[in-house]
Order: sequence, then C-alpha cells, then structure tokens
Amino acid sequence: MRRGARNLITDVAGLTVGNAQDLALRSGVTVVTGPAPFVAAVHVMGGAPGTRETDLLAPDRLVQEVDALVLSGGSAFGLAACDGVAAGLRAARRGFAVGPVRVPIVPGAILFDLLNGGAKDWDETPYPALGRAALAAAGPDFALGTAGAGTGAMTGDLKGGLGSASCVLPSGITVGALVAVNALGRATAGEGGQFWAAPFEEGDEFGGLGIAAAQGQEAPLPMKRLGEATTIAVVATDALLTKPQAHRMAVAAHDGMARALVPSHTPLDGDLVFAAATGLHPLQDPVCDLFQIGHAAATCLARAIARGVYLAQAQPGDLQPSWSARHRKG
Amino acid sequence: MRRGARNLITDVAGLTVGNAQDLALRSGVTVVTGPAPFVAAVHVMGGAPGTRETDLLAPDRLVQEVDALVLSGGSAFGLAACDGVAAGLRAARRGFAVGPVRVPIVPGAILFDLLNGGAKDWDETPYPALGRAALAAAGPDFALGTAGAGTGAMTGDLKGGLGSASCVLPSGITVGALVAVNALGRATAGEGGQFWAAPFEEGDEFGGLGIAAAQGQEAPLPMKRLGEATTIAVVATDALLTKPQAHRMAVAAHDGMARALVPSHTPLDGDLVFAAATGLHPLQDPVCDLFQIGHAAATCLARAIARGVYLAQAQPGDLQPSWSARHRKG
Repeated sequence: MRRGARNLITDVAGLTVGNAQDLALRSGVTVVTGPAPFVAAVHVMGGAPGTRETDLLAPDRLVQEVDALVLSGGSAFGLAACDGVAAGLRAARRGFAVGPVRVPIVPGAILFDLLNGGAKDWDETPYPALGRAALAAAGPDFALGTAGAGTGAMTGDLKGGLGSASCVLPSGITVGALVAVNALGRATAGEGGQFWAAPFEEGDEFGGLGIAAAQGQEAPLPMKRLGEATTIAVVATDALLTKPQAHRMAVAAHDGMARALVPSHTPLDGDLVFAAATGLHPLQDPVCDLFQIGHAAATCLARAIARGVYLAQAQPGDLQPSWSARHRKG
Repeated sequence: MRRGARNLITDVAGLTVGNAQDLALRSGVTVVTGPAPFVAAVHVMGGAPGTRETDLLAPDRLVQEVDALVLSGGSAFGLAACDGVAAGLRAARRGFAVGPVRVPIVPGAILFDLLNGGAKDWDETPYPALGRAALAAAGPDFALGTAGAGTGAMTGDLKGGLGSASCVLPSGITVGALVAVNALGRATAGEGGQFWAAPFEEGDEFGGLGIAAAQGQEAPLPMKRLGEATTIAVVATDALLTKPQAHRMAVAAHDGMARALVPSHTPLDGDLVFAAATGLHPLQDPVCDLFQIGHAAATCLARAIARGVYLAQAQPGDLQPSWSARHRKG
C-alpha cells in the first residue's frame, strides 16, 4: 500500500486535525474536524471506556454526520474538552440545524493520564480551553508523539503518544488513522525496540528495525496497576460510506490494535475506534471496496500506534523512558 | 505459558469435544459439551455471521449455562446440527429444567463450505445426524485438521481445518481454544509457510518455523469470491466466571484471530468467538485473573488457528493445497 503524501490522517480529503496540550498538566486534546460535517461511527472493545455522544453514532439514530471527533486525556474529566470544541463550533455557526439553532455534534473519548506525574491539582477543569484551542489549531499538519491527547500517555513499558499514518488504495480511496496510545500492553516485541506492527511498516516510518525474533511471550501481569489504560483512535476515509459501513470499518480497524499492542482490549483498557468518512469517493464495488477499506484501516492503525510510541519525546518528570531514549543509537 | 497436557481445549476440566464428518460431503460438525452445563457467552465481529441461540447468551437473559456449543459446516443449513445435538441431550435427560421437562440449551454457529467441491446435492439435511454423532463421540481426545467442522474449511490460499491449543496460567487456571478456520484471509505470512501466529508458538506445535520476514503486505482482494468465509471458535477456562466475565473473555480472544489471520473480521467473514467457563477455580484476584484469562484466550486462539491450518490433511478433490502438501520438506 502506498503512503499518503503526509502519512497523516489528514491525507483524507475533508479532514483537519488540531492539538492542544499543557506540558505541566501532562495532558492534552486532539480534535478531528473539517470544513463540512462527516459520517461517523464507533466500535468499543475495551473494558473501561469513557465516552460522550457515542449513542447517537448507532446506525438507527437521527444524526448522520458529526462536526468533530475529540480524543482527550484527563480520564472522565477530559470529556469536558467536547464543551470547548462545541463552543468553538457554535461561534463558527456550525452544527446540526434544528429550526433556527445549530447544535454541534461532537462525540469524544478519553484516556486515563491522571497518574503520570503531571500537575493535576486544578480547581476548574482545564479541558474545555484545551478543546477549544485544539479546534482553533486544526489544519492539515499537526505534531505526533508527545502532543495533543498523547501528551501524557504511557504504555506497559515505554511512553505512549499520538500517532498517525495513511495509505492510498489502488482504487484511489485514501484511508488514514489517528491514535492516542495509552495501553496496558506493549507496542514493542523485542529487547531491541522492534515493534509488533513491524510486518506492516511502510519505509522506515517507525525506525525500519524489522521484526523481533521474540517467541513464547509470557502472559504479563497488568503493569500500570495504579490506573487504567486506554488506546483511542479515529480511522478515516474519503470514501462515501453509510453509518453501518463506517461501523464495519471501525470493527475491522480493531485488528490493527490487536496486532500492534500485546495485550490489547483488556478489562482495564477502554480501547475504542471511531470511523469517519468524508464521502468524496462513491464506492465502485461495495463489497470489495469495503473489504479493502477495513483492512487498510487496520493496517494504518497498527502503523499509527507504532509511530505514536516511536515519536514520543522525553520530557522532564517522565515516569517511563521514551522509545528514543531507550533504543535510539548514537 | 505452559501448554496443557493434551494441548487441546479439553485440558479445561469439565469439557469434552466430539467430531463427526462426511468426507464426500466435505463438511462436518464439532460439539463442545461436558458432564454438566457450563457458563457461556459470545462475541460476534464478522460481517456475515450464521448463529442460533446466541441471543440467550446476553448477560441479562434467563439461562446462565448451556449444555453444548456447536460449530458446523453447511452455512445456514448447518444450524440443523443443533437439532441432532439437542435430540441426543434429550435422550440423556439433559437440559434446562422447566417443571417436568428439560430443554437442552445448544447455541451454535456455522461456516460457509458449500462451494468446496463436496457432494452438496442432498435432499434431506445431513446435519442433524452429524450433530448427534459428534455429541456421541465427545470425549477428552479428538482429531484436528481435516475433521469435524473443519472438514471442508478453506482459507485465502491453503486448506483450513480444525485447531485447538491450551495453556496453564501461573494461577493454576487452564485456558483452551478450539477453532474451525475458514477464513478469507491467510494464516501464513511468508512464502516459506511461516504462520502469522509464530510469535506465540509453544514448542513446535505448528512446525517451529519462526517468524516470516515479510513486510509491506499488500491489501489483498477477496480471493474466495464465490462464497463467504468465517472463522468460528470456542475459548474456554476452568475458572468460575459470570456471563459478563465470559463475554469479556470472548472479546479479548478476538485479538488472537486478528494476530493469526490477515485480514480477519472482514465484511465477508462471520467471525465469532464463544467463551465457556466450567467454574472449578474461583478467581483469586478478579481484575488480574480476568486480564490474564483474556490474554491467554487470545494467545491460545492464535495458536489453535495456526494448528488447524498446519494439521489439515490433503484429500482427493481438494480445491486448495494443504499446508503440508505445499510446505513440508522431504
């Protein structure tokens, strides 16, 4: 599969992404939006999810399109990021029209980063302001690693982070993934820092280290015993999908999480995947196109997870080493 | 993780398995049962499932335990296998008691094997008799490969088959998996027949070939274009689980399918996993034990998938090569 031009989810035409973060808080917010609303769906597989406005994404519900999707740190407090995003969208006169008013549709999900060493002694929640700032920053380019919702993320052994990747299918359809990796499991398989996602790496997008020869993986005990984990993602395509088709894309994308993080989907992870479709490319062969879009979403998500960990930056006060601090040579 | 004594799902105390097959029909049935009913759950992720009595497995439904779980070939016709299993259980006076009568509880799932070259011109469905014969054959030992529900199974490139594997956790809890592998995707990653599940192989249970160096997997087109696929599995433990806990085990086990079959969970696969718990070991630490059981179930299922393909036997009229015909040396 060919990578998109930026190797970011914003290679999907119709989407922009914005980050906002507070390094002292060790947390942040990432917003996926665009110039027009887009079809969305979600599939939740983890045992400890934290979400908002996910019920309206079911195929039978009234609203067909959303104005933004929000990934946030802050555990359940981070759901307030959607308030700030909604305020920003309201100021731009965006939202689902109900007579003369417009209601921005902003589903969101959070990850647990309350025990990562950050300054969590706030009195008034910082997440609405972070959400609004992330929306204001939205554009085709955005930072990966220690940024946005991945700012305070951790994994079983190394710092987590924000990752993204994209590909262009032979049909011309583009698929991308965005993920905040905050997993109980590990993204690396070997002592040398090789990634579980290595069979799917494009070029050297996460170091080009190849596949670890590790075998006979022991069943790890939960290592982040103090708190919960959670890997939250958005997969997207410029194809024209219905809500049920977008849901199938979200289901398929979870395979990428399983392949890139071991273990994943545990009782302590709130692992979930949103799917977004901007509708520029009508499907030529619905069965085959949807099959390929799902597989591409899984592959992009696996790659994005590895990139999120690979690109995390060491910061003062880190409780875990970054991948580059532990594994980069020279 | 240590393998169980048989490296079969029947290492889980309280479970027996029986196969019945018809080589001319190129189809068959596999039944999981035991001397007493057991807790069960299911999680469906594929886009084209075929099931029976799965609604009663939801946590809020009356019945807490089942008498048997059935995996069958035959597409929707194969759901009739449950009729034969129910008849056999009725003769043994087994089932959920309603006053003076007993109703056997027999959830089942099917795979699509109607276009595999077998003699499908039957007038009266052969599946009830195959179901009853599989129940009668149930015991601690059973055949793998071209047997039971895996008799007529295929994958993206090689013959599919029936697989199983087990492990014993440090807590003493045993976990096992049983699977009929009939996937649109492939279980092998490399030209040399190396399995996607290789990082999880115990000993040389599927050849000990190690990990393929394949990278940059192309998004395959659906290859079994004539029909649908479907990988159906049972994961089991001797732990004491509630129905919701068993459901979480089934969810976690899907990761093993994602790791062992690429792609999996496609719109054309009815991929699903039943979970069974025989209740001999109360959980000592519910969070940690359930975490480990889920990860073990994923790992056993990945290994069982590879074993099912590895052990398939060549038969006259095969439309695909078996793994051993293509890859075994000497």
